[in-house]
Amino acid sequence: MTWATSPFSGSGPIVGDLGEIGLLQTIRSILGDVSPPSPQGIGDDCATFTPPPGEKLLLTTDPVVLGIHFTATDPAAKAGAKLLKRNLSDIASMGGKPGPALLAFAMGPDLQTDWLVAFVEGLATACREYGVPLVGGDITSASQGTFIANLTQTGTASRPVLRRGAKPASPISVTGSLGGSFQGRHLDFIPRLQEGQFLATLGNLLSMTDLSDGLAKDLPGLLPPGTSASLDTSAIPLSADASSLDAAFCDGEDYELLFTLEPGTLLQDWPFATQCTKIGEIIQSGEREPLLDSQTGNPLRFHKPGYAHFHS
Amino acid sequence: MTWATSPFSGSGPIVGDLGEIGLLQTIRSILGDVSPPSPQGIGDDCATFTPPPGEKLLLTTDPVVLGIHFTATDPAAKAGAKLLKRNLSDIASMGGKPGPALLAFAMGPDLQTDWLVAFVEGLATACREYGVPLVGGDITSASQGTFIANLTQTGTASRPVLRRGAKPASPISVTGSLGGSFQGRHLDFIPRLQEGQFLATLGNLLSMTDLSDGLAKDLPGLLPPGTSASLDTSAIPLSADASSLDAAFCDGEDYELLFTLEPGTLLQDWPFATQCTKIGEIIQSGEREPLLDSQTGNPLRFHKPGYAHFHS
Repeated sequence: MTWATSPFSGSGPIVGDLGEIGLLQTIRSILGDVSPPSPQGIGDDCATFTPPPGEKLLLTTDPVVLGIHFTATDPAAKAGAKLLKRNLSDIASMGGKPGPALLAFAMGPDLQTDWLVAFVEGLATACREYGVPLVGGDITSASQGTFIANLTQTGTASRPVLRRGAKPASPISVTGSLGGSFQGRHLDFIPRLQEGQFLATLGNLLSMTDLSDGLAKDLPGLLPPGTSASLDTSAIPLSADASSLDAAFCDGEDYELLFTLEPGTLLQDWPFATQCTKIGEIIQSGEREPLLDSQTGNPLRFHKPGYAHFHS
Repeated sequence: MTWATSPFSGSGPIVGDLGEIGLLQTIRSILGDVSPPSPQGIGDDCATFTPPPGEKLLLTTDPVVLGIHFTATDPAAKAGAKLLKRNLSDIASMGGKPGPALLAFAMGPDLQTDWLVAFVEGLATACREYGVPLVGGDITSASQGTFIANLTQTGTASRPVLRRGAKPASPISVTGSLGGSFQGRHLDFIPRLQEGQFLATLGNLLSMTDLSDGLAKDLPGLLPPGTSASLDTSAIPLSADASSLDAAFCDGEDYELLFTLEPGTLLQDWPFATQCTKIGEIIQSGEREPLLDSQTGNPLRFHKPGYAHFHS
């Protein structure tokens, strides 16, 4: 379903008509088996969870906000799925397996009930697909025209992979292809959970992150002090939606994995259909430029360094 | 500090002027040691946490929303502390100890920076007081005039106490005093962590919750099917701010503990200055009325059954 104008315009019932109890019942009935009962899930003051023995707990939180992470004309079900998937991408980038999640809604009373139903259906379908139980949550009324859904996602990993750990001469690789995600891929992407879990088992994996803000903004986070990324720009995997190299570096919301390996080693036996590309390596550099062109040694600079809230 | 009109009016700088990086730096510098570095805290795609051996993880999430959980003229620092304390009250009601927390902000670019600083200072002070590290978070721009802060709080407990577990003839008790919290106590309360942890060690504790929506709405959640709460209305501990018995049952936001014991047993050796009062007991009842007056056997009915979002 898509809405021609806004989730807040239409002739159907609005969530303010349902009342809090009606709204909770509506959401619970859509979630069904995705929302287990207390003590694992909803129905008590807290949910409980015990990570498997020897595994560390992972915690991350990310929202979807109408007007920021999706638009009024995007399908509500895809926005709901995106809420889960963007959090799962963070779990994937640590090499983790998904655990239970908590959901917090803030919405104006003028939100169309049908729109919310489609959003929750999309979220519930994605939760089933990825085996994520929704174990707690909150619904708060907010000002008219507001819709914010915040998810806190847990995960578990025996060896969480961090952003830091790369060394000079580490090869840098990326999954999938980059750029132009706002054409639709930002709603349709697949979080790279299997790929991340596989990479985390490799003895030569040093560091990893997911590309949420774009290569230009996320890659510097992997660089040890005094180093730069020397990149083969001809090797950067452009998505079919990417209009230029700038797009691949700056558009953001790729939700692909970016990782580094032990210097002098290769990625062997990659068992996935997902593309995986070496794009350069880390080099010692006195300069403050994080990204360099490996052909020329010149800095790679981009017009828009990834997505930023509160543009200054 | 208080604002005479609104966190969104004034002549000072606004968060939109800071830009995303400036805003993050401002918040991080206030949080200081409350926000540990990766891998325990902020700076990676996920935070990591390992509950102590033999302990179960507790998970809860609750927001504070301007206009709902505090007003524009409430001190910002108290609103920040309330965000933590209302989540800690949920941990307390399961008999848990606080673990790390994640923070997600959604705010209009027109929010006064000084107001946000005071909010985060209040939150950071409370985090230090209760030993809660803030290990992850997100900041999202929202529509003008919006301020929502969502906290996801973890905790640990060797024996999480649930809402269910009471039996016919179970005594019902409550900590502190009830009603009129909107006079100021909803910002100044102390989450009953020590009391909850103590109660969880007692062999005769059967069930527990915290009073967030008021006795009239929260007590029925402790009743097994086919039972009612027979209450001695003269024993209900009225707060100095409670104007009537109705206030004690319906105002909500008391953040006191409500718990039941094994039938025929008492609470012995209560080691706290916090008041603790037996208010009645659970009785078998065929009727659908959850609350009964123990003197008359008549139903106790109240005008406003606790706070509800999206009033229908």
